[in-house]
Amino acid sequence: MRAVDIIQKKKEGGELTADEIKFFIEGFTAGEIPEYQMSALAMAICFVGMTDREVADLTDAMMRSGDVLDLSAFGDKSVDKHSTGGVGDKTSLVIAPIVATLGGVVAKMSGRGLGHTGGTVDKLESIAGFKTALSGDEFMAQAKKVGVVITGQSGTLAPADKKLYALRDVTSTIDSIPLIASSIMSKKLAAGSHSIVLDVKVGSGAFMKYMESAKALAEEMVKIGKSCGRRVRALITNMDVPLGRAVGNSLEVIEAAGVLKGEVGGDLKEVCVALASNMVSMVNLIPYEEAMARVLDAIDSGRAFDKMKEWVAAQGGDASYLDDFDLFPKAKVVYELKSDGAGYISKIDAEKIGVASSLLGAGRTKAGDPIDYSAGIEILAKTGDRVARGETIARFHTSSEALVAAAAEKYLSALSYSESAPEPEKLIYCTVE
Amino acid sequence: MRAVDIIQKKKEGGELTADEIKFFIEGFTAGEIPEYQMSALAMAICFVGMTDREVADLTDAMMRSGDVLDLSAFGDKSVDKHSTGGVGDKTSLVIAPIVATLGGVVAKMSGRGLGHTGGTVDKLESIAGFKTALSGDEFMAQAKKVGVVITGQSGTLAPADKKLYALRDVTSTIDSIPLIASSIMSKKLAAGSHSIVLDVKVGSGAFMKYMESAKALAEEMVKIGKSCGRRVRALITNMDVPLGRAVGNSLEVIEAAGVLKGEVGGDLKEVCVALASNMVSMVNLIPYEEAMARVLDAIDSGRAFDKMKEWVAAQGGDASYLDDFDLFPKAKVVYELKSDGAGYISKIDAEKIGVASSLLGAGRTKAGDPIDYSAGIEILAKTGDRVARGETIARFHTSSEALVAAAAEKYLSALSYSESAPEPEKLIYCTVE
Repeated sequence: MRAVDIIQKKKEGGELTADEIKFFIEGFTAGEIPEYQMSALAMAICFVGMTDREVADLTDAMMRSGDVLDLSAFGDKSVDKHSTGGVGDKTSLVIAPIVATLGGVVAKMSGRGLGHTGGTVDKLESIAGFKTALSGDEFMAQAKKVGVVITGQSGTLAPADKKLYALRDVTSTIDSIPLIASSIMSKKLAAGSHSIVLDVKVGSGAFMKYMESAKALAEEMVKIGKSCGRRVRALITNMDVPLGRAVGNSLEVIEAAGVLKGEVGGDLKEVCVALASNMVSMVNLIPYEEAMARVLDAIDSGRAFDKMKEWVAAQGGDASYLDDFDLFPKAKVVYELKSDGAGYISKIDAEKIGVASSLLGAGRTKAGDPIDYSAGIEILAKTGDRVARGETIARFHTSSEALVAAAAEKYLSALSYSESAPEPEKLIYCTVE
Repeated sequence: MRAVDIIQKKKEGGELTADEIKFFIEGFTAGEIPEYQMSALAMAICFVGMTDREVADLTDAMMRSGDVLDLSAFGDKSVDKHSTGGVGDKTSLVIAPIVATLGGVVAKMSGRGLGHTGGTVDKLESIAGFKTALSGDEFMAQAKKVGVVITGQSGTLAPADKKLYALRDVTSTIDSIPLIASSIMSKKLAAGSHSIVLDVKVGSGAFMKYMESAKALAEEMVKIGKSCGRRVRALITNMDVPLGRAVGNSLEVIEAAGVLKGEVGGDLKEVCVALASNMVSMVNLIPYEEAMARVLDAIDSGRAFDKMKEWVAAQGGDASYLDDFDLFPKAKVVYELKSDGAGYISKIDAEKIGVASSLLGAGRTKAGDPIDYSAGIEILAKTGDRVARGETIARFHTSSEALVAAAAEKYLSALSYSESAPEPEKLIYCTVE
């Protein structure tokens, strides 16, 4: 088998066999097939496409390129969600305890923040004592006992995808549904959960600009998951703005716990309830409406909040922080950002907000950088809010006044204003299953 | 300017600017743009194509990547031909003296043989004393005085093309007319001649399988040349078999001189007359028929043969070799190859014949290997000839009987037989200008 012949076959519109795909991905991961052949194949795939069978085989090959978590001990109860989220996305912290009170097992490896995106592991570490480095045995034992465990990544999930994604990024071969679908699903399948909820964003700021392509991607991913015997649903969402009002590590933990304490509603709660309800529906094989009723009850009754505390304590964290948010260390400097425009906020560029938060000390520019757990941003005015010039629109939390100016400039550049109120948009368009 | 944006633009069907093409080719040649981006762009070009303007700019960028011969001293009289030829292609040796007697100047750098293809420089060196390493001054002086000079390559013509071709070969991005046309023309334009005749082969064994694509390639190359102010014609030919009957260095010189001495006719003479007539027609701006009459007269009168001797002598070679072929050193072993099949020869795979000749000592497996100038093959039975089993079909010339077996096996595997006489095929289909 020769790589060049496989490229030629795809270029001519042929359907690659499972063996050909495996040969190519294994060779590429091992460094035996050079990047210039992989990029040529990726470009041919952008033009020719792939059949569902090829996409499933590509996903399988990438999934098997690294570690694959074995969660079979939990039968069909393990459940995961994928969100390209990033900025201000603390949904995992809210959803995991809810789902664990309703029969699901959320056992995840999670990453650290880099650049403008936050990391769930960093957020959890803002709670004193919280351990994110667990052994395999500790991980499984806690999943069994508590139903929730989130640990830092040990080992590597789908390294082939990581290498291929980096190459696609510099060869203009990102925007191919077979390649996007296999990229996401290879990691999710390697993560081992039996049920998976996927969040596919659509809109001007999202990767999928049009509903048609977002749906096609969602359908492809659901097909891949099903062909591997998993339960999969995808939500098509418009979550382009930072969810909720908090960005930054301890600020996000506080907001997430606030949802479970009944103190926080709005878009964050709406999205968490939708994601959790789909997960509960798949885990228990019950209709969505019934699952949603159980989810709301788990919140209202306080059981989900109790589960969050149980989880935090199980991982060594001081759960009293969740009862009394004042225990979280406070930022030295709190700065009130004033609006430099007036009118309705028509758009907030989430990525820029993420960068601003990072500049305040909440994030990293490179892996390994220390972070300031108390740093971050409270967003006071969101899309659709009307503001006057000079009105306070955000509160910055940081360790030094010297960090404020650059963050303020970035934050202000993230906002667009309009004369009239923008049309309120739906958060969740539809479900693909 | 970023390489990835240029790839994206081409992928989306855009027309690249001259600056974008120059940036990409210069960066690739300098090693600043990595191969994986070049291969992705090449694949996108295979699918999207290029406008005539883009192809001209691509050719220009590759031409300027290395040395460009300045033949402006010869005004519009310098003339060159391109043939993908290879096996048994000694047409340059025949044509150059003819054209030089009729007002043209053939001043060429030429390569050495490698693998199954022979090199004009090697062939000329089989004449005692012939110098193929000339200084720039010697080269120009001889071109001026004699009208013919062929030297080994000093410097590098179109290194960008060399690097890109090697990459295309392993990424299945060869079969794109814009890429083929710019590859050939970048080298021919760098070689500096004002008029160029191109030989575009078509047929089952050729790179262009169909007349339609051969014509498209020919038209593209003619357009490129004209856009650079050159005179260009392309012949669409069916020269898939070894031209003439000799393969090997001194054997080919003898055959070439034989054409000019009136001793050799057949396909070799026919093709040489067609190529030379086109060159003479372009150099003197006269109709093809008039040029052909002059070409035939140059041969018949002996003037072209005299010019060949003048040329050989000017480069230090012993021209008496051409009067008396017995002066060429003889191979120690002459072996008569018998047919292992019977019937009409329906096909001869030229590449395999080239390999067989190389195995007998006439060629190199890697650059720098020594070669045996007297080694080679006389092809006694060609396509269309009827042969009986055991009949002598070729004569091998070599230095050792030990080399015969492998060459014989290769040679026999190159032949196909049929029961009935194959349809005689035209050598030259048409001219594109």
